[in-house]
Amino acid sequence: MTAPALVRVPINPALVEALRQRLGDRLSTAAAVCEQHGKDESYHQPHAPDAVAFAHSTEEVVDIVKLCARYSTPIVPFGTGTSLEGHVAALKGGVCIDLSQMNRVLRVSAEDLDATVEAGVTRKQLNEYLRDTGLFFPIDPGADASLGGMSATRASGTNAVRYGTMRENVLALTVVLPDGQVIQTAHRARKSAAGYDLTRLFVGSEGTLGVITEVTVRLYGIPEAILAAVCAFPSIEDAVNTVILTIQSGIPVARIELLDEPQMEAINKYSKLNHKIAPTLFFEFHGTTAGAAEQVDLVKQIAGEYGGDDFRWASSQEERSKLWQARHDAYYAALALRPGSKGWPTDVCVPISRLAECIAETKADLAQSSIPSALAGHVGDGNFHLIFMIDPNRPEEIAEASRLNDRMVTRALAMDGTCTGEHGIGYGKSDFLYAEHGEAVQVMAAIKRAIDPDNLMNPGKIMRI
Amino acid sequence: MTAPALVRVPINPALVEALRQRLGDRLSTAAAVCEQHGKDESYHQPHAPDAVAFAHSTEEVVDIVKLCARYSTPIVPFGTGTSLEGHVAALKGGVCIDLSQMNRVLRVSAEDLDATVEAGVTRKQLNEYLRDTGLFFPIDPGADASLGGMSATRASGTNAVRYGTMRENVLALTVVLPDGQVIQTAHRARKSAAGYDLTRLFVGSEGTLGVITEVTVRLYGIPEAILAAVCAFPSIEDAVNTVILTIQSGIPVARIELLDEPQMEAINKYSKLNHKIAPTLFFEFHGTTAGAAEQVDLVKQIAGEYGGDDFRWASSQEERSKLWQARHDAYYAALALRPGSKGWPTDVCVPISRLAECIAETKADLAQSSIPSALAGHVGDGNFHLIFMIDPNRPEEIAEASRLNDRMVTRALAMDGTCTGEHGIGYGKSDFLYAEHGEAVQVMAAIKRAIDPDNLMNPGKIMRI
Repeated sequence: MTAPALVRVPINPALVEALRQRLGDRLSTAAAVCEQHGKDESYHQPHAPDAVAFAHSTEEVVDIVKLCARYSTPIVPFGTGTSLEGHVAALKGGVCIDLSQMNRVLRVSAEDLDATVEAGVTRKQLNEYLRDTGLFFPIDPGADASLGGMSATRASGTNAVRYGTMRENVLALTVVLPDGQVIQTAHRARKSAAGYDLTRLFVGSEGTLGVITEVTVRLYGIPEAILAAVCAFPSIEDAVNTVILTIQSGIPVARIELLDEPQMEAINKYSKLNHKIAPTLFFEFHGTTAGAAEQVDLVKQIAGEYGGDDFRWASSQEERSKLWQARHDAYYAALALRPGSKGWPTDVCVPISRLAECIAETKADLAQSSIPSALAGHVGDGNFHLIFMIDPNRPEEIAEASRLNDRMVTRALAMDGTCTGEHGIGYGKSDFLYAEHGEAVQVMAAIKRAIDPDNLMNPGKIMRI
Repeated sequence: MTAPALVRVPINPALVEALRQRLGDRLSTAAAVCEQHGKDESYHQPHAPDAVAFAHSTEEVVDIVKLCARYSTPIVPFGTGTSLEGHVAALKGGVCIDLSQMNRVLRVSAEDLDATVEAGVTRKQLNEYLRDTGLFFPIDPGADASLGGMSATRASGTNAVRYGTMRENVLALTVVLPDGQVIQTAHRARKSAAGYDLTRLFVGSEGTLGVITEVTVRLYGIPEAILAAVCAFPSIEDAVNTVILTIQSGIPVARIELLDEPQMEAINKYSKLNHKIAPTLFFEFHGTTAGAAEQVDLVKQIAGEYGGDDFRWASSQEERSKLWQARHDAYYAALALRPGSKGWPTDVCVPISRLAECIAETKADLAQSSIPSALAGHVGDGNFHLIFMIDPNRPEEIAEASRLNDRMVTRALAMDGTCTGEHGIGYGKSDFLYAEHGEAVQVMAAIKRAIDPDNLMNPGKIMRI
């Protein structure tokens, strides 16, 4: 995807000097550092910032933002760089604020089932910290992303079908606004009817409204029983219909993931597994011992109706970790199927009643194409991903992937779905934002202008202003 | 609570004439109609609009809004008038848009577990409509409020502890903006990462950003087993500690409601019941037969540890309805304890670890006061209500209730809670909005000005602009 035509103004050396005075060694203009901060894990063209500032506190972020504002210089917040639609590309240059060193867990309340962390804390780090408390943080987008980045991109992932996305699991944020003002979006009460929902406004704002420096999230008690299983199906329709009936029956599965044949082949090779090469569902059940067993019985019955094989169980924690690690490595596994290829990951989400149809039409479309691809997804939410394994040196492949992607998104929108269930807009999907939201994009633009009148916060992302 | 000092400009007769041409009989300037539309169910001073327009469609709302905009005339959306902080008071006069006749259920999808309704459909009407589908809509603020109003005020109520509030249960809204533009805030996918979360922005915006005309909500399968019970405790601390331990144990109770002694006395008299006059919890358990029974066992054990009596069961649907109707009538029941009194209902919400302390300090404060009051609440969320039964002709009682309310809110804020868990700000709690959110109110104000630059939408509510 080509970036929008934004003018890149050279950074003012006086700003670099002022930032260096404030941060010392933690201000870098080294080419390698800048390049690494201008790219994410996607095929999108990277755009390096002019400088990278490694912040250690909200106060430092305030000072960096104020200095950038004084010099009218763009700001791009950066967590782990694991986004997929060009979110961190410095399209207009400027200063990247790397928050990865703001990685302290500030408080955990076992009583209130919540925790407050600095934005750079990653989900695995938080769960490691929680290890002896009997609690866990469920949102799991695959990558070991930072909580700040996950908030900014409204991340979800495999557990969202049961636990919701970042939308449901962020209680409050500390945000540095474009003028350096610091706000708390909410207190810690589980619910509030006090004014506009600023927490939800900043969740998913992709760094275009401010820099998230602290995140308060909900936690959950580790269930008494966790059961994971894999089940192969005769066809992708059978697998999808199993998902649909499971969700419609209100069975509270914690994870229900679909992988198609190419994706299964890929993970077998990559993770040295021996799963059957067939459309497959990965399940996880959480509950009391009796409750989880009851869920398993119900889902087995549904799977049986659609010709599902016997469940292959991953009973120990170790086997479960291996199973889900393989699922999380699906992207890298798919790329390994075609050495030298670059991945073009994309996702859509539709109402579950349209999921089978949407996947079937998409697979039929892919069957006509010469570009290899693999499908996987959080199908319990109606959300699925495609990965195109493209040869980046062949423009015709990029054009073909773009055409297939366009068609899939258009199909999802026609089915009352969304152009992205969880990857976000970045600059890769801006065109689709307009296709999806129509005039409502003007409301988003009005909000953007009201909060960031000089368009300094991650310019060129989400909307074209 | 006195209204903020807003200048009331007489309505332009040309606007009234234009609206009458468009709506015929459905434009009323009758004093009785206007008065009825300027007041809610609270003690707040009513402010009648100059005219009431009964809309039948989104297109009509567009025309009304455009005409009002042309004459710079304020607009107040109206559902059932059951709000509690002066939300519908026409502080600057203008036109009330009554949406109660927009009461069609537009679609129900049993497959997707969602429905789209016009804004005037009430929660009971929707559940009646769903009767034969095996589905239900859980959000239940007590009053039979409209879905539009419930969205606008981010309503929650007794089931929120399990099913969430309107924040979690609205999938999409159709909104007429202050300039007459119509937007859809989202499609029907369960989740989306496409741009700013406009749905959550309009949920809880109290009519200050636009008129909600259609609502898409989540539905749920009616559980196989629904069990309701009542349990009395030796002290309010024991009851609250039972709630806290239940929530911390992750038991998915559907309802867990606290009523103090005066409130129990009130509902016994009002609803002709014979419950023990003691701090009492009302429970409801949803699940499979085995799952609900498992929840009951766990909660009984916890209640037993805190000296709870035997559970009194309401097993039939009829007994359950009677039990919850009594709970819902708590407000009217409390008022009936003091004939001629007017109710001052208020609510706060705190992290559950502070709930026992917050209620204890509040009760101690009330014990020093001569004004009768009753306490009830959705304590599973950390949310509780007070009702002061005041003599409206005695200004010293209003002053005393105001002082007690101030102290309770200040206490909740100091405990990292919110000034209102579910009633909203209206004009009754604007001062507290600033106390709670500080500089973040300026962000809300910037959004308000960006979307409604002429401050025509429900002026004087939430913020003082």
